[in-house]
Amino acid sequence: MSGQVARQARSATQPPMQVGVLGFGGLGQAAARMLVPKQEMMWIAAADQKGYAYTGSGLNWDECVAAYQKGSLGYLEPSGTLSNSSIQDLIQQAGQVEGYFLALPNLPNTFMAEVARQFIQSGWRGVLVDAIKRTSAVEQLLHLSDDLQAAGITYLTGCGATPGLLTAAAAIAAQSYAEIHQVKITFGVGIANWEAYRATIREDIAHLPGYDTESAHQMTDAEVEALLDQTHGLLTLENMEHADDIMLELAGICSRDRVTVGGVVDTRNPKKPLSTNVKITGRTFEGKISTHTFTLGDETSMAANVCGPAFGYLKAGISLHRRGIHGLFTAAEVMPQFVR
Amino acid sequence: MSGQVARQARSATQPPMQVGVLGFGGLGQAAARMLVPKQEMMWIAAADQKGYAYTGSGLNWDECVAAYQKGSLGYLEPSGTLSNSSIQDLIQQAGQVEGYFLALPNLPNTFMAEVARQFIQSGWRGVLVDAIKRTSAVEQLLHLSDDLQAAGITYLTGCGATPGLLTAAAAIAAQSYAEIHQVKITFGVGIANWEAYRATIREDIAHLPGYDTESAHQMTDAEVEALLDQTHGLLTLENMEHADDIMLELAGICSRDRVTVGGVVDTRNPKKPLSTNVKITGRTFEGKISTHTFTLGDETSMAANVCGPAFGYLKAGISLHRRGIHGLFTAAEVMPQFVR
Repeated sequence: MSGQVARQARSATQPPMQVGVLGFGGLGQAAARMLVPKQEMMWIAAADQKGYAYTGSGLNWDECVAAYQKGSLGYLEPSGTLSNSSIQDLIQQAGQVEGYFLALPNLPNTFMAEVARQFIQSGWRGVLVDAIKRTSAVEQLLHLSDDLQAAGITYLTGCGATPGLLTAAAAIAAQSYAEIHQVKITFGVGIANWEAYRATIREDIAHLPGYDTESAHQMTDAEVEALLDQTHGLLTLENMEHADDIMLELAGICSRDRVTVGGVVDTRNPKKPLSTNVKITGRTFEGKISTHTFTLGDETSMAANVCGPAFGYLKAGISLHRRGIHGLFTAAEVMPQFVR
Repeated sequence: MSGQVARQARSATQPPMQVGVLGFGGLGQAAARMLVPKQEMMWIAAADQKGYAYTGSGLNWDECVAAYQKGSLGYLEPSGTLSNSSIQDLIQQAGQVEGYFLALPNLPNTFMAEVARQFIQSGWRGVLVDAIKRTSAVEQLLHLSDDLQAAGITYLTGCGATPGLLTAAAAIAAQSYAEIHQVKITFGVGIANWEAYRATIREDIAHLPGYDTESAHQMTDAEVEALLDQTHGLLTLENMEHADDIMLELAGICSRDRVTVGGVVDTRNPKKPLSTNVKITGRTFEGKISTHTFTLGDETSMAANVCGPAFGYLKAGISLHRRGIHGLFTAAEVMPQFVR
């Protein structure tokens, strides 16, 4: 197995990685749009609840969005197929897909683990990446770790913005310290129109007092609208159940109770209500207490900060898979690779 | 090969990694002191120019410093040996060392590559980590990539603060962007007494106009003192030759001319003259230009920010080595692991 130089030489001559996106709501569409100009990845497969699209020569983003707006990717001509078991059917048909980004809302909270089980049972071998948020959802995947490994699947979980980008930054920052006292993640999200991210907003609402994933999932659009009217479009979230905690614990950096996640989502303004940041406080080997801070530029969107890392981890996962390294990993223990 | 859960279960029962530190000046002593309280690593070997110390049961920091102050680690009783080929002799004797941190000043600028060649020729198989600074020094190691791989050595280069901690943070931050326009590293270092870091300060002086590595290396302490008197103890460095550039280029993130490194070293004050930071500017897939910023806490010392990452990469390198992955890697492509 080879180091950097040999790999660089190889990558210049290699065909693009063939990848798919599961879920085609706001996040899935943004992910696919990000993929289009990439030289190192080709987007050949996608699925929504009612169908899928697949073609070895690469999907067209505008055509896929148009088909989805008619009701499903399954309406795409000639590459679409309507199906009530779209993910399962796509896996069977698109064997050469090397990796998928699971841009699926995890509603109910067991959904992502169920999708992982479908992949395990299918016999497909490749890479899966999610941008899952809840600690309990990552815990479900941990139970599948041995099965993923036995199936020859490399699964990277928690690979969005938070958990993901900010968790990885915290894992890097932790290196200056002998002991980590606190990791505090504070995010600001601004979106012009919540209806472009219906599932994501419901996942956020589920963190509010008096709601859970089930009740948020069941809300009608009118009910979401009524709630947002009460809060002037703002969702203020504190002490959220976020998998950054378990990921940093698994990486041996600190116990999960030292990790806190909160933030403000403005559903009526693309400008962020505050700058997203992570602060890592610890004690150095000399006994000094200090804090490193990683702050995201306000002009970077949720889509850029979620989907960019997701594909960076997908590329890293494909490297691991090609080396025969399978099983479950988190964003805190693998360096994402930049996708050109 | 196994994912996170299986590894966690294993690590709880594994004996500590047996590691060594080469070089026992300011950086090497700080590195060894950092190692002492670690449960996951045991410090069993060290070398300076005139001798080495080695004992399978673990070295005592105070005793090693006392021996070094007498002239060499070789004076340590009963574990020290005086030698004019200390590194070579130590490698031969301490076969069970899994990895070394090369806390050696790279003076002359070919020294680290020469040490790497000694390891390649020795037949020893394990992990080497350096905190090398110059682009040209990393280029020399790149030429050894195939030899390192053939020798069964996993070599991680540029694993200090910058390059290292800040380069890795830049690689993470880059994930939000489709294209990177600039990576700007600005460091502040404050040390109470430059004489504790004689080699490091000479490496810094070598970046000043009118100096090079050779002339800086040849300076007497009195000459260094005279220079620092002229600058009131401050060294202001701009457009430095720093390997962050080649490391980010090799990782495919941006061409090296987009990476700049500069900073201020105060040799008479432990307080940093400015907060060390890296700014990553790029264009998102939606066409927005933005900047992420990673800022180190002022209370973290150069030693904490160099040696902490070095051991984090040493642990990651040992994981790679145990999986049979050899060759040359940089800090921008491997996630460091937290050492408890």
